Amino acid sequence: MNNIIFTNHVGRQLDQEITAINPDRIFLLTDINTRDAVIPRLQMLSQRVADAHIISIPPGDLNKNLDSLANIWQQLSDNKATRSSLLVNVGGGVITDIGAFAASTFKRGIPYINIPTTLLAAVDASVGGKTGINFNGLKNEIGTFSSPRQVIISTIFFNTLSHTEILSGYAEMIKHSLLDSPQEFSAILAYNPDPVDPDRLLDLLQRNIRVKSDIVTIDPTEKGPRRALNLGHTAGHAFETLAMERHTPIPHGYAVAYGLIVAAVLSHIKCQFPTDTIHTLAAYIHQHYGAFAITCDDYPHLLEIMTHDKKNTGDGNISFTLLSAVGQPQCGIPCTPADITAALDLYRDILHLP
Amino acid sequence: MNNIIFTNHVGRQLDQEITAINPDRIFLLTDINTRDAVIPRLQMLSQRVADAHIISIPPGDLNKNLDSLANIWQQLSDNKATRSSLLVNVGGGVITDIGAFAASTFKRGIPYINIPTTLLAAVDASVGGKTGINFNGLKNEIGTFSSPRQVIISTIFFNTLSHTEILSGYAEMIKHSLLDSPQEFSAILAYNPDPVDPDRLLDLLQRNIRVKSDIVTIDPTEKGPRRALNLGHTAGHAFETLAMERHTPIPHGYAVAYGLIVAAVLSHIKCQFPTDTIHTLAAYIHQHYGAFAITCDDYPHLLEIMTHDKKNTGDGNISFTLLSAVGQPQCGIPCTPADITAALDLYRDILHLP
Repeated sequence: MNNIIFTNHVGRQLDQEITAINPDRIFLLTDINTRDAVIPRLQMLSQRVADAHIISIPPGDLNKNLDSLANIWQQLSDNKATRSSLLVNVGGGVITDIGAFAASTFKRGIPYINIPTTLLAAVDASVGGKTGINFNGLKNEIGTFSSPRQVIISTIFFNTLSHTEILSGYAEMIKHSLLDSPQEFSAILAYNPDPVDPDRLLDLLQRNIRVKSDIVTIDPTEKGPRRALNLGHTAGHAFETLAMERHTPIPHGYAVAYGLIVAAVLSHIKCQFPTDTIHTLAAYIHQHYGAFAITCDDYPHLLEIMTHDKKNTGDGNISFTLLSAVGQPQCGIPCTPADITAALDLYRDILHLP
Repeated sequence: MNNIIFTNHVGRQLDQEITAINPDRIFLLTDINTRDAVIPRLQMLSQRVADAHIISIPPGDLNKNLDSLANIWQQLSDNKATRSSLLVNVGGGVITDIGAFAASTFKRGIPYINIPTTLLAAVDASVGGKTGINFNGLKNEIGTFSSPRQVIISTIFFNTLSHTEILSGYAEMIKHSLLDSPQEFSAILAYNPDPVDPDRLLDLLQRNIRVKSDIVTIDPTEKGPRRALNLGHTAGHAFETLAMERHTPIPHGYAVAYGLIVAAVLSHIKCQFPTDTIHTLAAYIHQHYGAFAITCDDYPHLLEIMTHDKKNTGDGNISFTLLSAVGQPQCGIPCTPADITAALDLYRDILHLP
């Protein structure tokens, strides 16, 4: 966890790290929204990025694609970036994912710093060295494992976020607490993340992200324990893809929140996860996140999407991370289409979906 | 060097490695020429690839580009490749470079095997974990460092190669011998690589490639000693790029051969490399490779191309790997435009260019 810094003195930290790296040129990658909302503030706080070359791409997950990637490579190349140049990625998960992928492949790798400006990116996308783009309609189909020189996590930019964006990030914190301990799970459900209290949220983030970074440290390339972090993501990604196909996209964190309910139900079916915890979790999620509507007509397509998941081995079953209890993840549990169908039925029952 | 196997029993070796990897699906990447000349033979020799899904791209360095890369990713994705699928790259350096890049980034990395079918790819592109594509008119501008599960080096496919292709590969062997020792340098200049004697060339290759793999093992990401392998490549790449821009491309190995002469001359200017060795080297290269014609009008553009080289740090000088003697590389020697201009003048003199 030594390349993650938690601080609300972002400018000072960034200047210090840039001095340590001593790059010949500095590039700032951001999206068009963040460029207007955050970059002027960041350039006031950090003298070292005041004259950086700014690369901006259109916002949103739909733009985390090959066109944007080629555009970033082109601008680095045209502006004579060398292996000693630095890319600073400032934005949400789209920016940190695609920026890290661009940096890790430009001239076979240049140094980069991630500064997440959303809660979701802070808690999820900026830690763990996963980079990537969407391709062929599949999320993160192309990418690398790569380490940023530093991730600077702060909460000072979160006042620009909507309620939905705060909640979206908080879903990943719920996930981490489920992997960690009953105490952390209770603390997370007791805290109200909106409106943001910058210093208190920074403390909670630091404790919460440690769950993830501890796992990533022992398993950087996702061969073993790291699969625990997929909790809620197999069904969540499928919901997210389905919503995108319906042209009514849902925020990633909301998809994960719904996916956590599916994972909890499957955990009960396969690993005796207690039903009262399912209901505690589902009540919180229902209250804050509502529900993602599906009918049994959607099941075959959802199963099809899950079959495409990177973590599958191709034998027809779908591999899930589940829990035998809060704090006790079980990785790579093979679930049959019948198991998943049962879980989706229960998901609909619990959330009172028709 | 434990993932490089030297054998002329290619089918047996490939089947054995595939059994060890136990992939759910097997993909063969090749170019259209190699598909016709080599793949039927390989599929006769190896039962395990008889039913593999074949992906073929157009041949040649001009096709080592983003379009071909996207095409490979698309075919892997459409044909439901998983992280447990295997990509076998069969061809020259274009195929092993782009195939390794595609594999190292598809779903953040799937296993791959390289089977070089040209001498150049055997001696150079298949060892060392460099992957990549050309981009923005620059060679290998985009890529990763990544390790194949196995490289199977054999000489049995070399009987399909032209004299030019054999010589092109042999230039890299000359380079390795210059880095290694006076004995190896003499042995390489004494051997005649064409026509191919499969078993004798395999022995010589095994000895020669060890020079490279020993260096790569101690420095996989090119921070230090590995830069020795750039000997001849800074000027060589510039010649290659210039030739491409003139629409009269020259084989990579020929460009390296000419670049070795420039490096030897610069080595004399900066590091007291002995003049008699320059003349021994230049005589061999002139006899077998001819000369690449340049005039002083080309110097500014050649310097411009060299400035773009990945190994530069952006201070205006150009960094070269040089030799103080055969077997004694000196890495990262900064050369001024005046040094390089003097070396290009001497290059023209030695090769009797107008």
